[in-house]
Amino acid sequence: MSSELQTLIDIELPIIQAPMAGVQTSALAIAVSAAGGLGSLPCAMLGMQEIRDQLALITSATDRPYNINFFCHRPPVEDAARNAAWQNALAPYYTEFGLDPGEVPEAEDRAPFGEEALEILREFEPPVVSFHFGLPADDLLQGVRATGARILCSATTVAEARWLEARGVDAIIAQGLEAGGHRGMFLGEDITTQVGTLALLPQIVAAVDLPVIAAGGISDAAGVGAALDLGASAVQVGTAFLLCDEATTAPLHREALTSPGAAHTALTNLFSGRPARGIVNRIMRDLGPISDDVVPFPLASRALAPLRSAAEARGSSDFTSLWCGQNASGCRAIPAAELLRSLAAQL
Amino acid sequence: MSSELQTLIDIELPIIQAPMAGVQTSALAIAVSAAGGLGSLPCAMLGMQEIRDQLALITSATDRPYNINFFCHRPPVEDAARNAAWQNALAPYYTEFGLDPGEVPEAEDRAPFGEEALEILREFEPPVVSFHFGLPADDLLQGVRATGARILCSATTVAEARWLEARGVDAIIAQGLEAGGHRGMFLGEDITTQVGTLALLPQIVAAVDLPVIAAGGISDAAGVGAALDLGASAVQVGTAFLLCDEATTAPLHREALTSPGAAHTALTNLFSGRPARGIVNRIMRDLGPISDDVVPFPLASRALAPLRSAAEARGSSDFTSLWCGQNASGCRAIPAAELLRSLAAQL
Repeated sequence: MSSELQTLIDIELPIIQAPMAGVQTSALAIAVSAAGGLGSLPCAMLGMQEIRDQLALITSATDRPYNINFFCHRPPVEDAARNAAWQNALAPYYTEFGLDPGEVPEAEDRAPFGEEALEILREFEPPVVSFHFGLPADDLLQGVRATGARILCSATTVAEARWLEARGVDAIIAQGLEAGGHRGMFLGEDITTQVGTLALLPQIVAAVDLPVIAAGGISDAAGVGAALDLGASAVQVGTAFLLCDEATTAPLHREALTSPGAAHTALTNLFSGRPARGIVNRIMRDLGPISDDVVPFPLASRALAPLRSAAEARGSSDFTSLWCGQNASGCRAIPAAELLRSLAAQL
Repeated sequence: MSSELQTLIDIELPIIQAPMAGVQTSALAIAVSAAGGLGSLPCAMLGMQEIRDQLALITSATDRPYNINFFCHRPPVEDAARNAAWQNALAPYYTEFGLDPGEVPEAEDRAPFGEEALEILREFEPPVVSFHFGLPADDLLQGVRATGARILCSATTVAEARWLEARGVDAIIAQGLEAGGHRGMFLGEDITTQVGTLALLPQIVAAVDLPVIAAGGISDAAGVGAALDLGASAVQVGTAFLLCDEATTAPLHREALTSPGAAHTALTNLFSGRPARGIVNRIMRDLGPISDDVVPFPLASRALAPLRSAAEARGSSDFTSLWCGQNASGCRAIPAAELLRSLAAQL
């Protein structure tokens, strides 16, 4: 029996591979979509030409539905005092690595969804577009809808789910606290509002009249079954795909995911300026995972970049964002299609 | 088909009513046990005579199995500097209510499980004894085992579950982050180690060779089914029972549970000194839910008590611990037996 979401976007299996910027490109999306799930292309860290190139790869490789994902943060306002505070918090590490604080690189290209990206959607007409950190402005959103795409967006509270329903999304991703990577929260910044999947999912299902996709903590077939029991129309799985052959997860990240340390993740704003879940490492321990000194998303990564590079060159992930959910037990170094089949084993 | 836990303690339904100190006595336990679940008597805030009286009530009312619950914290060490810091943090409220800081009452009777309580167990031979905050010292634990009781204890991490298994408990309560009231954490104090139920439960099930009881975020029959899907041998439900006729939940607490505010809970150490989940109220907003100034468990409640009384006399729960999990949607003002039947509806 197909769920409402399966019918809506014509997928064989009610399983979405979570878009994970920085650790995957089109290859993972293609593998998952071709195997009957919904593969996702994360665009948060891609330039416009890269997005075009990746979409060309997807559309030439499979005619199955796929999802393209964008961040919808407000562009940050530069603040010299906060920049200085953040640089100051990192100063001891610059000294330790013999780095020059004057050589902090310019901000990387991580623009929110805008007119240029919409133009690409008009060109490729992707079947599904998902957003994180809320939705783009109304005119942009209408532009996306006009391409014919089904629109998904993450909600981390019941209030966010209701807000999204009122704006006409086609389905809601209930992102439980267990999920790895960035919290999709957009109606507030207080992380105590964030709710575990088992509690969040049924409350969102009860609150809205849309298909709900469960995300956070799902790592195997039993987890998929439990989410469907709780009223989910599909699940979104991220962490379990991080070791897959098609993921571009860096060796240090892969190593961390299979280490005992993967059992301890925390929400941290140190790496980007927004709370995201990753494996606890040195900088998170030193500064505390949540710092008031951090500059707004996505600028925090700028001053960290030289430290990250220097440490990684020494084989250390002390300054690397090791995104991971609270259940890494499903991570397996196998082809994504095989992982997808194992997730679907009880359907 | 009976689960391993049902066989172990001879209960008809794989549902435990969570022990909730301060909001219930024997009446709730009796109602649940008589209806086929496992009712629990929380002893954390009871004196020895009260425990005897409550056990006498239970054993005269039902011959079904019941659970008696104790806290296993280390007795706090008084520290004048910390006491002063905590009193100082609360000073503005003392002024606001016209209270005299010199009149802070003595600590209430909240001793950890000890020899006196063991003597009561020898007398009543309860079928099940559960512990929170770890286990009592080895000699005490052996004393409990010698009474013939099945021993349960909460684990909030995989490491805690393994620790408990090594010490010979009969079953483990996997307490997910969603749960209301005190976190049972005992191998550390870092709340970032705490994991959502959907992620914690299957990892504990995989790690130990004992029946596992799922707790946190379960509020209805679908939640019970999901937990069993994930390998739980039973569930423990607390919050949903808070409005039941047999609970002694205070009117202000009941009011909060049915208000929109119940959607926002947080872990806070303000009320006792240990992290516990409750509905966010004024003092949690003012001081932040987690304060470094707070004195060790259970002493924090001492200096708060006069404020709580004064505010409650004005009809305000600004200083009241409003324990509640992340899913209050199952709270119903009905007899506990009826709630239990609804939780069991899909079994």
